[in-house]
This record gives sequence, structure tokens and C-alpha cells, in this order.
Amino acid sequence: MAEYVAVREVGLRDGLQMVASVLPAEHKLAWCRAELAAGVREMEVTSFVPPKVVPQFVDADAVGRGALALPGLRASALVVNLKGAQRAFEAGFTLVGYVVSASEAHSLANARRTTDDAIAEYARIREARDARPDGTGIALSVAVATAFGCTMQGPVAVARVVEVAEALLSIGAEEIMLADTVGYADPAAVAVLFPAVAAVAGQVPLSAHFHDTRGLGLANVCAALEAGVRHFDASLGGLGGCPFAPGATGNIALEDTVFLLERLGFETGIDLPALLALRATVETWLPGERFGGALARAGLPRSAPAPAMAAAPLPA
Amino acid sequence: MAEYVAVREVGLRDGLQMVASVLPAEHKLAWCRAELAAGVREMEVTSFVPPKVVPQFVDADAVGRGALALPGLRASALVVNLKGAQRAFEAGFTLVGYVVSASEAHSLANARRTTDDAIAEYARIREARDARPDGTGIALSVAVATAFGCTMQGPVAVARVVEVAEALLSIGAEEIMLADTVGYADPAAVAVLFPAVAAVAGQVPLSAHFHDTRGLGLANVCAALEAGVRHFDASLGGLGGCPFAPGATGNIALEDTVFLLERLGFETGIDLPALLALRATVETWLPGERFGGALARAGLPRSAPAPAMAAAPLPA
Repeated sequence: MAEYVAVREVGLRDGLQMVASVLPAEHKLAWCRAELAAGVREMEVTSFVPPKVVPQFVDADAVGRGALALPGLRASALVVNLKGAQRAFEAGFTLVGYVVSASEAHSLANARRTTDDAIAEYARIREARDARPDGTGIALSVAVATAFGCTMQGPVAVARVVEVAEALLSIGAEEIMLADTVGYADPAAVAVLFPAVAAVAGQVPLSAHFHDTRGLGLANVCAALEAGVRHFDASLGGLGGCPFAPGATGNIALEDTVFLLERLGFETGIDLPALLALRATVETWLPGERFGGALARAGLPRSAPAPAMAAAPLPA
Repeated sequence: MAEYVAVREVGLRDGLQMVASVLPAEHKLAWCRAELAAGVREMEVTSFVPPKVVPQFVDADAVGRGALALPGLRASALVVNLKGAQRAFEAGFTLVGYVVSASEAHSLANARRTTDDAIAEYARIREARDARPDGTGIALSVAVATAFGCTMQGPVAVARVVEVAEALLSIGAEEIMLADTVGYADPAAVAVLFPAVAAVAGQVPLSAHFHDTRGLGLANVCAALEAGVRHFDASLGGLGGCPFAPGATGNIALEDTVFLLERLGFETGIDLPALLALRATVETWLPGERFGGALARAGLPRSAPAPAMAAAPLPA
């Protein structure tokens, strides 16, 4: 039996935060429903941030309510501080993601606090979770952002990422995600960083969040698979991007990632034709946005003869 | 010292055969000169096919003459039959590539002969080469096309590819290139096929020709590197494509491939900023053509702090 690899849709959060138009909550929920029907069982559906920071998530409560009502869907929300976490808990999320930047410069610019302060804020989030009557039912995942490098700071040392992960683990992170926020990862770096963090993570699972900013996204997935990672973020159509590189490609495309995993013999439980059909629908909802990924352009490969097809003009 | 990996530009052949407009010979040669100055030392600069089949290569003699006059450039030409090979020899090429499709269906559609007949034609090309006074100075490379699958036939068996390679080696192929003509390769298939062919190739070098049709191009490069391959085809801006999938992505992008290789610690001798500048120029020569690759959108990563940059709106 093929080994299962989980792919989480983050397009509704990481993708939509980068697009120009605000997608109505009903479209977001239609996206969730269709993708769940296609076999995607994990989705980061929104972010609890002040609407004035990201107007796209003004409907976080409504989207959360709708997504949490879908049987079989593991819906998660991203938060960037205690206040957001409390909103996510109130909304009923049982999986909440938080982010700490390994790069001090990125942490200050993005979260307006140092990395150490961001770790301290995670401790407060955990305390708030533990103090809730329903706290034991809520899991906390922490992403270490800019784990492979930072547009502002440049390289980020492996030792620094391990140190940040250790600090988070010591206060009870229940999942560590290593995030290549701005497309600095490469397969060699992946092959070094995941084992280094795994060495301190014990039984805490590691997951990977790759962008395809410089084309290495799927090569990085392969390197992470070799390092034992079985949980990946991706976004339909590669939606998302890097605020520091306008027009740059975004997250690894969900459909290309699933195609890769299935070709490598892993099981994802995801129906690719259904996913491609949904992508076409989402494209109509976001006119003017650049959708990435190669599979949607080429289509799925034929596995059976198709003798009526035209001849190729030239080989190789 | 870093290990050298050779990357051959095939955009002037595989890329231009797919574009709508015929690029003037002077632009082709300006491309060669600029790319050579950027450190690209191997280029497939044209194809000797009847101009009525591919009008783009009506200038094959002029482009060949110009490219062969550039000191330090290893210019090669593609041929699909004996007649083309004789033209290439006459033009002075000392490296001539030929193609045999492992898929019978693709061979018939593309070269209008069976795979066995294509192998027999290679024997005639080799004889013609050997009969020339300058024959010892001419190397013959053979690409096994559709080595990973075929749009018409579907999967292509590893044993079949090995059989074709063995037949070619027995009549003196001096390099074997495994070509994923239509984007069927994946890292698992690459990890199987290259060692299988290497086992029969002895000292004859293997090289790889990948398309990025379904987004797996650079992941396939990584798998081929692991299998010991040190010679890759690529095209500037990912020019090229698949005649059976209009709009599909083409060859792996030269600039993204070089970026990957350098990040993995290999030496390519290629100057990426110069390559990106050339790409921008070539884009002006081919208006309306879709250029692929991610690096040109995102730009090269910063390795030094850039404190004046704006803050990211959201993490991860």
C-alpha cells in the first residue's frame, strides 16, 4: 500500500492575502467544499488579523464557521498574536497556526516584534489555550518563517533555526513547520535543515511550506520527502507570492505537488481532474490574477494510446 | 573545488522551433555571442531539416557558420536523417545530434520511420561520418526521445529504452541523451532509467534533456544529478514546448537550472545576471511568446541586508 502524504491547501490564506480583489465568503466556502470533495482534507482557510491589515480576512469568522461545519475537513486558521489566537479559539478552530520568523529583520518588519518576543507571544497563546475548558481539543502548530533565508537579512543560519525551534518546542509547539517564506530554499539546504530540526523535535512532526519563487519548489519537496517529511503546504494554482518580489511565483501549486507525489508512488487521496476543474472555476473568480503551475497548462498525461492525435513537427 | 556541470542551451533549436515568428540569423548569432560571454559554452544552434518543415531553420548554414566562428563555443546541430547530417558535416559542425524515439508511435509520426529504421539511419550517418577525411574530428550524440513516455503511446518501458540505447551504442553512439520529449519524466522514473542505461553505456557519457511540461523539470534534474548525470539541456526562458499540449511549458529554463545547480554547490561557469539580461533582450525579439521560468520574475536572492525595503504584510 502506498504511503500517505498530506497536502494542505493554503491558497485561501497565503494565496488570497496576495490577490487584489476580496473574494466573497461564499466563494471561499465553495472552494473549500469542492476541494474537500476532491479529497483535500486539510486547509488553512483564513487568518485572524485586523481587517485593516488584510481586508481579505474581514470574513474570518464566517469562513471559519462554514469551513468548520464541513464534515471530514481539518480546517485551520493562521494567527500572528494572542488576540488573533483568542479569536480563532472562539470561532471554534481546533488547529491554529502561529508564525515566528527566524530572521530578526523579518520578525520586526512583519510582526513588529523581535524573534524572542514572538516566541514569548507563543507562550502566551499556549497558556490561553490551556486555560480554556476546550483547550485540550485545540492543537497548536508553529511555522518558523524565513527558515531558509530572508529578503532583508540574507542567509539565516541553520543553528538559528534550530535554536528557534528548540525554544518553541520547550514551550509546547505541537507541530513545527519550516517555511521558505521568500523562496530561498534549495534541495541542499532542505536536506540539511530538516534533519537538523528533526534531531531536536523528537516525536513532534515537521512539515514544509515551500514557495516556488525561484522555481525550486518541487525539487525542495523531493528533498524534504527524502528527509522524511510527509506534510506539505501548497496552494491551488500556485496562488500567493512574495511581497518583496512583485510578480514572483507564489506557493508551490497544489495540483503540481499532488501530481509529483502520486508519480513518486505516494498516496494523497486527491483527485487531480477534480482539482484542475476547481482551479478553472477559481480562475473565473479572480480575474487578472496570475495563476501558476505547469500541470493546468499541459493537462494530465495520457496513459493510453491516442492514435488520432496529430504528429509532432520535430523530436526531442 | 566545486564539481562542474555542463548546461547546453537548446533554445535556439528546441525553443525556436516552437515559436511563431522566424528570428533573423543576426539575432540568433547575437544570442550566441551574448550567452557565450555569459559563460554558456555549449549550444545547439540549429537543425538541418527541410525549411518547408521548419521555416525557422532556413538559415541553418549561416547560423552554423557564425556560431562555429565563435572561439570557445561548442556549437552543435540537430539532424533527423542522413541528408541533414551530411549538411551539418559540410557546414563544419564537429558535434552533431541525432534523435531516435523509443516510442514506435512517436517515431512513426515524427520521423516517418520505425524505431528500428531510425537506428539503421544512425548507422548510415555514422558510416558517412567515418568516410569523411575530417570524420575523426566529428562527434555524434544520440538522443533517445520519449524515453519516459509518449503522448501517443503512453508509458515507454525501461527495457525498451535500454534496448534502443544498446542498439545505438553497438553502432557507436558517442553520447546518449535521455530525452523527456513530452514531459512524462518524474524523479522516480529518472532514478530508475539513468542507472539502467548507464549499466549498458560503459564509458559513453549520458546526458539529460528535460521539459518542464508538468512542473517536474528541476526535480528531475536533481534526480539525474543523484544518478551521476553532469550534462543537461535547457533553454533560456524555458522556450520550447510540446506540440501535443498547446500552451504547455517547454524546456527547463536555463536560468532556473543554473540557479539550482549553483545553489547545490556545482560550478556551471555561467553568470546569472548576464543571463537574465540576455533573456530580457530575447523577450523583445519574440513579442507575444510566453517565456517561462521563475527566476526572472523573482530576481536573484539578496545575500546582503537591504534595510530600506518595505515590510511584508503577512508572514509565511
